Amino acid sequence: MKKTTLLINCPDKKGIIATVTNFIVAKKGNTIYIEQHVDHELKEFFMRLECEFDQDEEKLALFKDSFNKHVAKDYHMHWEMYNAEKKPKMALFVSKYDHCLYDILGRHASGELKVKIPIIISNHEDLKPIADAFKIPFKYIPVTKTTKIQAETQQLDLLKEYKIDFIILARYMQILSSNFVDQFPHKIINIHHSFLPAFPGAKPYHSAYERGVKIIGATSHYVTSDLDEGPIIEQEVVRVSHVHNVHDFILKGRDLEKIVLSRAIKHHIERKVLVYNNKTVIFS
Amino acid sequence: MKKTTLLINCPDKKGIIATVTNFIVAKKGNTIYIEQHVDHELKEFFMRLECEFDQDEEKLALFKDSFNKHVAKDYHMHWEMYNAEKKPKMALFVSKYDHCLYDILGRHASGELKVKIPIIISNHEDLKPIADAFKIPFKYIPVTKTTKIQAETQQLDLLKEYKIDFIILARYMQILSSNFVDQFPHKIINIHHSFLPAFPGAKPYHSAYERGVKIIGATSHYVTSDLDEGPIIEQEVVRVSHVHNVHDFILKGRDLEKIVLSRAIKHHIERKVLVYNNKTVIFS
Amino acid sequence: MKKTTLLINCPDKKGIIATVTNFIVAKKGNTIYIEQHVDHELKEFFMRLECEFDQDEEKLALFKDSFNKHVAKDYHMHWEMYNAEKKPKMALFVSKYDHCLYDILGRHASGELKVKIPIIISNHEDLKPIADAFKIPFKYIPVTKTTKIQAETQQLDLLKEYKIDFIILARYMQILSSNFVDQFPHKIINIHHSFLPAFPGAKPYHSAYERGVKIIGATSHYVTSDLDEGPIIEQEVVRVSHVHNVHDFILKGRDLEKIVLSRAIKHHIERKVLVYNNKTVIFS
Amino acid sequence: MKKTTLLINCPDKKGIIATVTNFIVAKKGNTIYIEQHVDHELKEFFMRLECEFDQDEEKLALFKDSFNKHVAKDYHMHWEMYNAEKKPKMALFVSKYDHCLYDILGRHASGELKVKIPIIISNHEDLKPIADAFKIPFKYIPVTKTTKIQAETQQLDLLKEYKIDFIILARYMQILSSNFVDQFPHKIINIHHSFLPAFPGAKPYHSAYERGVKIIGATSHYVTSDLDEGPIIEQEVVRVSHVHNVHDFILKGRDLEKIVLSRAIKHHIERKVLVYNNKTVIFS
Repeated sequence: MKKTTLLINCPDKKGIIATVTNFIVAKKGNTIYIEQHVDHELKEFFMRLECEFDQDEEKLALFKDSFNKHVAKDYHMHWEMYNAEKKPKMALFVSKYDHCLYDILGRHASGELKVKIPIIISNHEDLKPIADAFKIPFKYIPVTKTTKIQAETQQLDLLKEYKIDFIILARYMQILSSNFVDQFPHKIINIHHSFLPAFPGAKPYHSAYERGVKIIGATSHYVTSDLDEGPIIEQEVVRVSHVHNVHDFILKGRDLEKIVLSRAIKHHIERKVLVYNNKTVIFS
Repeated sequence: MKKTTLLINCPDKKGIIATVTNFIVAKKGNTIYIEQHVDHELKEFFMRLECEFDQDEEKLALFKDSFNKHVAKDYHMHWEMYNAEKKPKMALFVSKYDHCLYDILGRHASGELKVKIPIIISNHEDLKPIADAFKIPFKYIPVTKTTKIQAETQQLDLLKEYKIDFIILARYMQILSSNFVDQFPHKIINIHHSFLPAFPGAKPYHSAYERGVKIIGATSHYVTSDLDEGPIIEQEVVRVSHVHNVHDFILKGRDLEKIVLSRAIKHHIERKVLVYNNKTVIFS
Repeated sequence: MKKTTLLINCPDKKGIIATVTNFIVAKKGNTIYIEQHVDHELKEFFMRLECEFDQDEEKLALFKDSFNKHVAKDYHMHWEMYNAEKKPKMALFVSKYDHCLYDILGRHASGELKVKIPIIISNHEDLKPIADAFKIPFKYIPVTKTTKIQAETQQLDLLKEYKIDFIILARYMQILSSNFVDQFPHKIINIHHSFLPAFPGAKPYHSAYERGVKIIGATSHYVTSDLDEGPIIEQEVVRVSHVHNVHDFILKGRDLEKIVLSRAIKHHIERKVLVYNNKTVIFS
Repeated sequence: MKKTTLLINCPDKKGIIATVTNFIVAKKGNTIYIEQHVDHELKEFFMRLECEFDQDEEKLALFKDSFNKHVAKDYHMHWEMYNAEKKPKMALFVSKYDHCLYDILGRHASGELKVKIPIIISNHEDLKPIADAFKIPFKYIPVTKTTKIQAETQQLDLLKEYKIDFIILARYMQILSSNFVDQFPHKIINIHHSFLPAFPGAKPYHSAYERGVKIIGATSHYVTSDLDEGPIIEQEVVRVSHVHNVHDFILKGRDLEKIVLSRAIKHHIERKVLVYNNKTVIFS
């Protein structure tokens, strides 16, 4: 039995659930779990469906074809189908901060993240020893204003070579070009060290300190060509007070960044995220 | 179109979703929203389904009959069906603490709680002025060791007279008898002023202070004949430190109690709670 | 024995604590509690000191005079001294939203807020019945663009007449003029229904919904002539998800607003807030 | 200038603050920061004081002597004095779980923990590669029922050899004997994977799942001879729901354990913890 995850969104209309579940029955599949959401304002329907098929890859391809013709077209569906047992391939982009890298590699090593990490890419050499300790290939690709385009070409070649499915910017301190971003739509996850939309841009902990907020946060989001404006996947906060200086904010923030980023990675790996209208539906 | 909420649980089995949704289509109903959960350990299936019918009360009665015969029996379902547009009737039991009462009546007055409150019952007269201010009948039924049985008979008569659907113990400082509780199975909600199962019984804030915990909580649960052991509906916590004494704990706890109890009331009113195995499934 | 609270801030320098505590000893006072903070970046010293004096009002006046001459001048102190046993007088400004009003009056009625509430001022008549139920004078002063100046004059006269110490804007839906604000520096507390600085201005819940944030918040702050830019006293947040619409945000936000505003009121009443550089030091 | 931290507790009495600060002035020291707490119920006074001395070790020893004679005795003080610039030596005890170990070593490597880690001791060999990656000596001391006493002797010898100041049980799955614990009073920190006092003992995540709680927690505490009953240093919680099974609880709990344990370590390192009456005062 092959476990499969179906992610669907389309204009809301009567009968979608019955149509999809009946189609799966007709194709000798078994629906295990449905989760669903309707945005009543936008009149959009969202569904995540886990099902099992007693079929090989070839027949699944036929299923896709048939689903497209007989279901998806009628409802104007945007849909994706994933083999739930296949681990996706994730590339890590880092610079000099090590806390998110330690955290992700630690979770990966202990089996918490069902993903392959074929490569770590960095514009600095500082974190190579960590990659080495965890035995993951580390590619150093320096980036300067003048070499940015070539650097991105190199990066894209590597991502292609390693058949990377999605990218994590684990405190990668470079802004990716629109050209780069467009090749991985909703497949690049960034961690921003503030409670967006408060304090976008650089030095958010300093800005939060200046403003005298009593709570600071971190935000993971899909990268779009609008900096810090992409769909938010997860946020978390922690309380601060006047006794904490900027350095304390940074230390407290690190814990947030690790947790928020790892939660976002898990949501993405488990195909629980649907993006629509620059917002996310996160299935449970 | 009549909006209806269906709550179902039964042993997990293939085809439940398809069977139910197809039955609704056959009866000219329209499934608007499904939420579902499977407890894989207990192999139990849970579903909350919102649907619309273009039918009068009489025909809905026939639907129930037919659903019982053709669906529920086969799957050994435990199920309930509610008219989603009808406000249930809620009785409030209070003693001397006023904060939960103020909170519930305030929320009710501002339209936040879709419920009728035909009556407030108390074993003390202290809170009568609040009931008066909100123009809700207040029945004073004193309770002593020797009069407890008669008092409960009086209470039960009132609940019957006012056709009460469920009861909120808003810091009611009496323990209800098993006889009473059995007449409202999973229809009595209590607020316990600790993070259960820590600090059950009386004076939990004092016990929490003695133990030196750094976080205190409150718990709302359905009342069963085992004191403080009923299915938990909602919990919330707040941070404390060595600077807070028992009185501070009590003040901070009040805010928790209000929020936790009002959330539990809302879940119950919206038919989002399914009880199984002394635990709750809370649909979103 | 008269309990007194001293709030001091001045440029950081050696010996402040010893000087102040010795001065109090010399004046036959007893220091019960010191809390202190140094902003190392701004090199500013902050202290809150509780002490007892076995003296009448007259002699305390002499103490103030003497403290000014012999201590405060040398250290360039900004300082205030409060009779810790005297309840300050608080005015409530409201418009149409009732949840914060219910919450504050409920807390006051149950003895949680050590404050007098001589008057409620509103630009609408809607909430008069609540004021009546709690037996607090309610003054209706309508505000339109053309009558704003007269309205504020009327308000200021009332505040003077009732000897008001500080003002709570409990979802008061009017912007106060700079002239008004300047007469109550750091003595007007507002509740803003967002996690400032995210979503300043009107309709923050709508903006938060549009942006797809996963956490919403509320902020209480002192009112300055810069709208939503005053020193933050307290913030709190709550988690939201794609299942919540704007209306749900508003309902969840109400609970935040009540809690955040009441915490700010308590901090202010207990003289635990020192404002400096548009930020607050909140003593514990 | 030598930075020094003084931790004091004694029966509450007038004049303590003035006496101590004046004594420091007399010894040519400068008080930088005072934090203080009074437990009014137990009538106990607590103080943490940071001060600077322009003196060498020898003269500081004289200071201690003099302080004892002229201050501490009169007030029946329990007091300790630490060189704030000297990194204490911390031993890690682990078994098979790696998440806390990764977390602590990661934080240490990035400079977040001002501590030396001369040794990791384990009753299993599984985590040796992690110790190796971070280049910290790893001592494998197996423990069985019959060898427990010898094993502890071996451990105590190592702790003596490495001049260990305090011990972290980073999910060490053995119970230490009273004999062992008594040699490190309030110097052994454990992380318990539940919100104590709820779910003490083994398998707390399973118990929490069984009970159907809506929030789970983790607790760090000093180890005493009463298992899971020692003074609580820090606690943190996270929300769970019916969709999470025991495995999810465990994964979510791991993040709590890491954060709670690292916060407790920091409090301890910075000498911010005073234990009294089996509870902790945590200075800010």
